[in-house]
Order: sequence, then C-alpha cells, then structure tokens
Amino acid sequence: MITLKNYACGEWTAGDEEGRVLHHAVTGEKIATCSSRGLDFAAMLAWGRTKGGPTLRAMHFPERAALLKTMAATLNENLEELHHIAASYGATRHDAMLDIEGGIGALGFFGSMGAKKLPPSGFLTDGESIPLSKPGHFAGRHIYVPLEGVAIQVNAYNFPAWGMLEKLAPSLLAGMPSIVKPATPTAWLAFRMVQILIDSGVMPPGTLQLICGSVGDLFDHLTCQDVISFTGSASTGEKIRSHPRVVRNAVRVNIEADSLNAIVLGPDVAPGSPDMEHFTEEVLREMTIKAGQKCTAIRRVLVPADKEQALIDALVEKLRSVRVGDPQREGVRMGPLVDRAALESARRGIEQLGGETEVVFGDPHKTEFEGEGTEGGFFMEPILLRATNPDTAQAVHDIEIFGPVATILAYRDVDEALRLARRGGGSLVASVYSEDEDFIREMTFGLAPYHGRLMMMSATAAPESTGHGVVMPHLVHGGPGRAGGGEELGGPRSLHHYMQRIALQGDPARLDRLCAPASS
Amino acid sequence: MITLKNYACGEWTAGDEEGRVLHHAVTGEKIATCSSRGLDFAAMLAWGRTKGGPTLRAMHFPERAALLKTMAATLNENLEELHHIAASYGATRHDAMLDIEGGIGALGFFGSMGAKKLPPSGFLTDGESIPLSKPGHFAGRHIYVPLEGVAIQVNAYNFPAWGMLEKLAPSLLAGMPSIVKPATPTAWLAFRMVQILIDSGVMPPGTLQLICGSVGDLFDHLTCQDVISFTGSASTGEKIRSHPRVVRNAVRVNIEADSLNAIVLGPDVAPGSPDMEHFTEEVLREMTIKAGQKCTAIRRVLVPADKEQALIDALVEKLRSVRVGDPQREGVRMGPLVDRAALESARRGIEQLGGETEVVFGDPHKTEFEGEGTEGGFFMEPILLRATNPDTAQAVHDIEIFGPVATILAYRDVDEALRLARRGGGSLVASVYSEDEDFIREMTFGLAPYHGRLMMMSATAAPESTGHGVVMPHLVHGGPGRAGGGEELGGPRSLHHYMQRIALQGDPARLDRLCAPASS
Repeated sequence: MITLKNYACGEWTAGDEEGRVLHHAVTGEKIATCSSRGLDFAAMLAWGRTKGGPTLRAMHFPERAALLKTMAATLNENLEELHHIAASYGATRHDAMLDIEGGIGALGFFGSMGAKKLPPSGFLTDGESIPLSKPGHFAGRHIYVPLEGVAIQVNAYNFPAWGMLEKLAPSLLAGMPSIVKPATPTAWLAFRMVQILIDSGVMPPGTLQLICGSVGDLFDHLTCQDVISFTGSASTGEKIRSHPRVVRNAVRVNIEADSLNAIVLGPDVAPGSPDMEHFTEEVLREMTIKAGQKCTAIRRVLVPADKEQALIDALVEKLRSVRVGDPQREGVRMGPLVDRAALESARRGIEQLGGETEVVFGDPHKTEFEGEGTEGGFFMEPILLRATNPDTAQAVHDIEIFGPVATILAYRDVDEALRLARRGGGSLVASVYSEDEDFIREMTFGLAPYHGRLMMMSATAAPESTGHGVVMPHLVHGGPGRAGGGEELGGPRSLHHYMQRIALQGDPARLDRLCAPASS
Repeated sequence: MITLKNYACGEWTAGDEEGRVLHHAVTGEKIATCSSRGLDFAAMLAWGRTKGGPTLRAMHFPERAALLKTMAATLNENLEELHHIAASYGATRHDAMLDIEGGIGALGFFGSMGAKKLPPSGFLTDGESIPLSKPGHFAGRHIYVPLEGVAIQVNAYNFPAWGMLEKLAPSLLAGMPSIVKPATPTAWLAFRMVQILIDSGVMPPGTLQLICGSVGDLFDHLTCQDVISFTGSASTGEKIRSHPRVVRNAVRVNIEADSLNAIVLGPDVAPGSPDMEHFTEEVLREMTIKAGQKCTAIRRVLVPADKEQALIDALVEKLRSVRVGDPQREGVRMGPLVDRAALESARRGIEQLGGETEVVFGDPHKTEFEGEGTEGGFFMEPILLRATNPDTAQAVHDIEIFGPVATILAYRDVDEALRLARRGGGSLVASVYSEDEDFIREMTFGLAPYHGRLMMMSATAAPESTGHGVVMPHLVHGGPGRAGGGEELGGPRSLHHYMQRIALQGDPARLDRLCAPASS
C-alpha cells in the first residue's frame, strides 16, 4: 500500500496515524492510506502567505501564465502513469481523459489567455478613468489586485485532476498561492500530480501545498485575505459557509455543490428526428460518463407527455447495449462508482425515490459485471427511472443520486416544463433541445435566473457541442441556490475571485501612473 | 407622537403593539413609535415576487431608469419637509444634504446611467460570443438576467435617506423589487420618503415595501432568488450571514459593516504646506460631519512621528473653533449623536481605548451645548485621542467608536505606516496625502488588498476632492474583512449584485437572436 503524503511548508510529511484507506474501485482492493494528522495548518498558511504570495505577486501575468504552461508540459510528460492511477478509481479511458487531459487543458487555456490577453502587470485595471470634478484634477478608477492570503481549494472525488487544476490555474494566474485538498477516495491522483510538479522544481516555493486527509483546524486561521473554493456536497458547503471564523472575517467562500440538472425535450421534436437522436444520445452519455458521477450530469429528463414512450423506447434500446465492468476491458463503456459508500448512497437514493418513480431500466442490486475481480468492486448498471406523477413528485427534485441514474418527468405544456426545471432550486446547467425559437426564448429567460449555464441545442449545434456535462474554461461554472451560489472559470472572470477590486481616487495624472502595467 | 406604519402587500399597516420609541436627538423628546409586529412577512415576499418583479422585468433599462428619475423628482418636491425631519436626528443642514440630496442624487445618477448607457433590454450581455467548435456552429456567450426574488435592504441609522436610495436605485434598475427596512432610530425619514413615493403613485405595485421595526421571520422565507443587502454593525452582519436559511439556500448577502478607516500623512509633507492644511481640514471634516457617524469616517490618523506635534497643534486649533449644539442655530457646525445608546456606546469606546491612548482634545462627558433644550439631547464634543504606544496599541484597531472621535498614531517608516493601516483588518476607505510618487505607489499597492477605496491625495487633487468619507455612485463601496466583505455601487457594476450571470451555449445565430435587446 502507498502512503499518500502531505506537502506542507516545503516538506513531504506523512500523517502520524495510518489514516483512511483508499480502495481500488474495480476490485475493492486496498491501495493506499492517507492522513494529515499532526500537520501544523497555521504554519502552512504562513508559508503560503510569506513565501508563495510575494513570489507570485512579483511576477506579471505573462510570467504567471508561463508557469501554468510549464506545469501543463510537466504533467503531460507523465500521462501514462497518471492514466494508470485514474484506472484505480474506475475511470474508462474517456473518463480519465476528461479528468487528466481536461485538467491539463485548463492549465493550458489559462496559460494561453495570460500570455495573449493579460498585460505585463501584477494587477488588472477595470474600466477607464472617471472624472469626478469639473476642473479635472480629481478622478476615480478601479483596479483589481491579488489578495495576499492563500487560496484553499477543497475538491470533490469525481475529478481529482481537473477539479484541482481548474481551480489552481486561475488562482496562480491571479497571483495567489494555494493549499489543495483532494477528496480522500481519489486523492492518489491529485497527490501524484502535486508530487510530479514539486519534484520537477517548476513550482516556486510556497505556491503549492497539499493536504491528503482532513483540513484539521485550517479554517480557524483564515483571514479576509484568504479564499475558500469548495466543490462537493451541499451539507459540507453549509458547514464551510457558516464556520465561525469564516463568518467573522468575511472570508470569501466560493461553493459549487450538488445540483439536479435537467434536460428538456422541446414539444416540436418528433421521434426519429435528428434532435430526438441527439437528445437521447446526450442523456445516455450523461448517465454513463464517469458512471454518472459528475456535478453537471443530467438527473432529470423533461419530455412532452406525448413523446415520453418514444423517448423511453429509444433510450432503453441504447442502455441495453451499454457494457459495464472493468474499464480496462475492451468494449466496456462504463466503470464502477468510486467506493462502497458511493454505491450504497446511490442505492439508497433510488430507494428514496421509490415512492414516486418506477424503474424503467436496470437493477440497482445487480452484482455481476464484466472483468476479473469485479465482484469486489463498486458497480451499478445504469438505472432509468420514470416519475409516476410528475406534478406531485418532490424527492426527484431534492435528492441527487450521484451515480448512473436519471429520472424521466413528463410535462404537459411550457409552463409545466419551466416549473419542473426550476424546482431543482438552482442548478449548474440545463439543456433544451428544440428548433422552435419562441420555445427556446421562453425556456432561456425562464430558466436563466436558476442556472449557471444553459445549452440551447438545435440540430446544427448538437453535432459540434462539447456536451451538457462538460465545463469549458471559457465559460462560468456554478449555479445559484442548491448548486452552491458560486462561480468559477469564465476566462478572465475567474481571476476576480482571487483579487480585491478597489476604487482609486486622485489626480488623473497620478492615477494613470499608478494604473500603468507594473508588478506590485 | 407619530406612528410609523409599514407598507406591506399594498397596504399601510401599523404594528399591533406600541413598539419602539424614537427620540429627537437635539432635545431627547419622544417623536414617534414604530413596530412591525403582526406583519405577514412571507406574504410580503410573495407580493414582491408576484407583483413587483414581473412588472419590473417587463420594463427595459431606460424605462426602469425613467422610474428612478420620477422618484427623484417626486422626492425633490418635498425637500423642505424632508429637511425638517432630518433635523430630528440632529443633522446640520450640510449633514442632511449629504443624506437627502445625496440619496436623491444617487437615484438621479442611476437614472441617467440607465437612460444613456444601458440597452433597451431587460437583461445585460457580458462580453462577446466565444467560438467553441471548429466548424463554427457551437459557441458560448454570457448574459446577466434579473433575479426573480426580492431585494431585502436593511439600512443603518446614520443615512436613512441615502442608505435607502443608493441601494434601491441599482436594484430597481436591475429589475428587482425591494423590501426596505430602515434602522429604527431614524426610521421617520425613510418612512416619509416611502410614503411620498407610494402616495404619489409613481411606484408600480409590489416594487417597494417598507418594514419599520424588526424583520420578524422574514429571513426564514428567503430563496436563492432573493438578495440581502445590509449596512450596519459587524455583529448583526455575522448573524445575517450565518442565518440557517440563508446558508442553506445560498441566499446572496452583501454586507457593509464597521470599519476603522485610516488617513495617512506622507513623510514628505511639511507643516504649513498646502498638503498639511488639506490633511488637517479633512480630518476635522470627517470628525465633525454627522458627528462622526459615518461608516467611512476617519478613525485612525497616521502621521510621521516627527510631524505628530505639528499636526496635533494644527488640529486642536481647528477643533477649538467647532461649535457644537442645536444644528438649527446659526454657526453651529456639529449636532448630536442619534440617541442615548449611541452616546453611551461612544463614551464606552473612549473608555475602552483609555489604556492605550490619551485625550488630546475634548471631554466625552461634557454636558453643556448651544441651544435650547440641548440638555436632554445626545451631544458629545469632538474628541481627539493619541496612541501612547502605536506599536502595541490594539483596541484602536478593533473598536470603532461611532461618533466624533479619532485617534492619532505616530509611525516611524513606510513599513510601519502600512502595517498599522492594515491592522484595521479590512476597511472601506483609506486616504494618503503625499507628493512623493514612490511613497504613493508603495501605499497604494500595500493598502489595496485591505480596502474598497483609496484616495491618494496631492495638492492639485485635494481642493477638488469629494472627500474621504463621501461615497460616489460611480465607484464601488465596501471593503474586505472587518468592513463586511461586500460591494455596492460602482456604476454599472452595482447591477450585478441583483442579477444572475449565465453562460449560454448553442448555435451562434441562435445566441445572437437571444442576446439581442428585449424585455424578458
């Protein structure tokens, strides 16, 4: 068994206990342990603030961008090993690429953006100078400067690589050092990536630290200069948001939590049409990619009542051909869930929905899957549910089953489609498939206040789409309410989460001097 | 005595108890009572959401802007009465103008901005279309749409008019209805303004409601579509931020709380120079305007040790000539604090600072002031303190005395000046007076992460300056940490607090159609 160490204050340190055990998702074998017990979390923050922060702030954006590109290149040299590790959490080749290559791609995206679109400066200007006096010697202007604390990045288990790198890229580019905390079940991959980056010497001292295990009393030492970015469950998000020290010091918190994302089939889409085919394929993909373990995965499938049976027929036919088992095996499309707890939680969720849904496809308790040793793994076949009475069903809007499970809800008219979609209480993303531009407009502005992203699909766009569940670094990611109320990514928008916006006032000549590109 | 009523669900309703009593600050006489007991707060939210929101969202920005202009014109017709009411909380004519004309000016500012700079649309676009596929049929674009809930605006007692209107203007312009809750001691002015607006018929039904008194169980009914904007004490801010319903539903909270704002005299500024004179005047103004009851007022005066005595001499000379008493009296420069609790709190604060400061000017217990009946009022003369050991003083960075009180702290070098200023733990604003551009640069980037606004003064800018304590609607207002971590105003930036940003994906032709100006 491997011991996942922590990287704290420039040293690799194991916890002073055996700690939690990580299991191979395909076979259930023990593969690693990790613990952070004994770490001095206050010292880690101090190390980041005094070592990493000043170094990054002395660099200008294109220099920080070059760091991101070097990080991407360094990780790219180790792809084979990283894919080997990703197999341990049950990823297919395609799943692992979304995670590993997707994460490295985010580094590359922000590296390019920083090199091409950001000034040779340590801070950003925001808008032009605004005259504030008639004679003209007093004006105002806004700038963004990096915060002087540490970015605490707490990630979810489903994307150990992408989740870490899509947060790390904007924060480093903004000029903040990070302490990264991967979720335990898949911490091996994050650990190995950090180890590669540190051992290769590309990371300036203090800019990147790693906690494998609990965050201990880390939050008790945060100030208004630190930022917490969290991806994970709504309940943990609530704990972070109401932590006394976080509340007292108005520590910035950016949360991306569970959500019950919907896909909506337009009333105009006929069975057998290209839109119907794209729609069905999209639902299938979202159910099976990473065994449905994506915050953005489709949980609720809204279809016009008169198309429900046609969709079920088309979808079930596709689901029948999905091979589930060891992803290393040729032809296997879907791997297992990450661990026993995830499997049990998914089965429990399906039970909780039992009162208002019927199972259309799949058996949550099936135990035989393709591949050797899979009887010890954490498999579930794709499960398609159908709400028996969409008007009254409630659990289907509340309980996120984090696995290969989706529920079909039939709707009667546009109002009901909107009402059902909005009952998710705030989601990361919704997709709508229709050629009817009036319907599209109504859905767009009806869904927008409750979402972070909307994919308004047509037969021309669908073949080129990056997919309902795929988060692009160009676009914001996050959603209101149930989805956590946070926002990440979105190209240059992502930097602002790690910077303070200030209004400067003074003589315009002085403001011009101050706002000219410079490292701080 | 007047009974301040609530305006809820289209009705003027008194609370079902006598409620809290408001006192005349100059004489201590009872002037009004207010209570919100018996209101149906859930119904108020429903009224705003179903009546006010749809009406505002059906208007485009220039139409909403026209509403703001009509509101400003309506209030402007009642200036004399409003000034009469402002006298009851102890405002001088100048204090009242900052509040009343300042507030109406904010309405006017956003009215003009909305008319001239915003599109004939119900939503905003954010950036251009971003290609996301090589063939070009899949792209992304960001828009902002109004949230569909209610803006809950909880204001501080020091600016009953401005505090209300500077929040109301951006939220109405963004397309959200409001429930306004003034602080009780000065609720009369806010009540009367709302009454004027409602009675004149300018407000579309449901767009403006008023709570005079406690918010009751209002927060228990909030969703992710509502927004809380709060100005007031750090302790109340903490309660709002950690309210279980707010945490659970990720309700947006924008807090502007206490802060210990600093002014810094540059080492290069010679006694007798124009900068020294401007600096001294600014400190005096900030101590006396509204009897120091401004969130942005200067609490800490940082001076080079070798200039400390010269500054004290100059400031004391000016303070001696400040006449304190009934503001209606000719020649009186400063009025009372708002009520007995405020007076006692200010005296207690001065006591708490006693261990580390000495009194340079003023007697916190003086009881005789100019004008008839002032023996029953809540007066305090300006108090200038001096930290006896600025290195070790701590309370001076923690305790905000919300009255005409400032403390001088001598510093030795630039590092110490920065260190002292930053010990405020996050402030709304700081000012620096210097002609030395290197010093200015060092202070700007050293102070920026801890502030929301920085006024970098020179002899050319100072005569045209709008002042350290004056918040301009063009510029952001708010600060990190102790200052609450919020942000308001800033011209078009202010709208975003009341809107959801969404990434749209689809065929670029479809996105162009969706993003063309339209009411939603």
